[in-house]
Amino acid sequence: MRPERLVDAVLFDTFGTVVDWRAGISQAVAEFSSAVDPNEFALAWRGRYQPSMAPVRSGEREFVDLDVLHRENLEATAAATGLPLDTADPSDVDWLNRAWHRLPAWPDSVPGLTELKRHFIIGPLSNGHTALLTNMAKHASLPWDVIIGSDITRAYKPDPNAYLRTAELLRLPPERVMLCAAHNTDLAAAQEAGLRTAFIPRPAEYGPSQRLDLQATGPWDVIAQDIVDLATQLREHVPS
Amino acid sequence: MRPERLVDAVLFDTFGTVVDWRAGISQAVAEFSSAVDPNEFALAWRGRYQPSMAPVRSGEREFVDLDVLHRENLEATAAATGLPLDTADPSDVDWLNRAWHRLPAWPDSVPGLTELKRHFIIGPLSNGHTALLTNMAKHASLPWDVIIGSDITRAYKPDPNAYLRTAELLRLPPERVMLCAAHNTDLAAAQEAGLRTAFIPRPAEYGPSQRLDLQATGPWDVIAQDIVDLATQLREHVPS
Repeated sequence: MRPERLVDAVLFDTFGTVVDWRAGISQAVAEFSSAVDPNEFALAWRGRYQPSMAPVRSGEREFVDLDVLHRENLEATAAATGLPLDTADPSDVDWLNRAWHRLPAWPDSVPGLTELKRHFIIGPLSNGHTALLTNMAKHASLPWDVIIGSDITRAYKPDPNAYLRTAELLRLPPERVMLCAAHNTDLAAAQEAGLRTAFIPRPAEYGPSQRLDLQATGPWDVIAQDIVDLATQLREHVPS
Repeated sequence: MRPERLVDAVLFDTFGTVVDWRAGISQAVAEFSSAVDPNEFALAWRGRYQPSMAPVRSGEREFVDLDVLHRENLEATAAATGLPLDTADPSDVDWLNRAWHRLPAWPDSVPGLTELKRHFIIGPLSNGHTALLTNMAKHASLPWDVIIGSDITRAYKPDPNAYLRTAELLRLPPERVMLCAAHNTDLAAAQEAGLRTAFIPRPAEYGPSQRLDLQATGPWDVIAQDIVDLATQLREHVPS
């Protein structure tokens, strides 16, 4: 029997799943100042990420993009850790804030995405906005077909609108779209919205202290070792 | 003196400028039926394109995408020319209508875009919607970095919002964005909105009867022979 293609589009969480934010942010912090431990600062800055989106998700705050939230979180983290922002050149602070646009890909990301692109529409499904994701793709050579940022859907995951509006813009029913992520909560929300799901572990995302998301904890459609393995597994579902 | 990069993003009109709609539509019509002249039908179908967007531009009609407008225009053209739609399989009619998603690139498009992609953000700035432009890119191997369809800007060119909202989503000032088109009216509107402009002639777009847009008629920033030549000319403005 001829296998059917499981989905038409394979979309990806980006921060942590496709790119190594901890390495990229640590490096940018180290280049900015030697006043703090770069890795610790990166973890602390990222630690404010989910809470900062909560008021947007709940509707208390109008949608603002990640450049705004990252900047607020940068200032709070700097104040808490003693990173000197006020005495720095404003353009250097802006450059540091935009380090989230310049993150390195995990080693398997580009080869895996390149293979997937042969058979599927590929793109990010990220809380990043369109310009950030475009700059990230240029920087890390991510071969996306299409980029629909959170400033287009006006929703932050795991808000169901983030998943559903993306599928709608692709004119695909949710079940023809797969989300691939290293985060079980993201996949749970995508599955609840009707998307297909794939988990890949990124056990080094947070460093040695990582306890969450070391393995799949839900009934995901695919569990893969990395993006290259995901491409191999999905190939079995592609008509030859 | 070190040359500066003229712009950050080089965006393209698609129908006629990047892809040969007359060839693609003629072929799809020929495959659908032998009741009409395929080339004449393609010209007549396309002839209803600009008028059909006018009520959306003026605000009389809420935004509807090109699948909707192409379908209405297909039915009107079929009625006027004797193409039998009612007796055809509905899925064949839908396939014909979506021939606008499957148009062939002009021979210079992919090599020229591939070269431009090395130095600039490249994407369409088209009246097509995101799904149509994504499918077109997959079909014709157009290596866009980002696709912002008219369903995202909710505006049809030459409405200034089409140009300005695209630049805004890229977080670029209009003068850092270039529109490349084979149509002088499109470039005039882009220039009026503050974008940079490049003209490339597509004298075969409408076939032997073409009288418009055989040459540049405005003060465009660049006039190129084709997209490969555009890449060559813009390379002179790129820091090496």
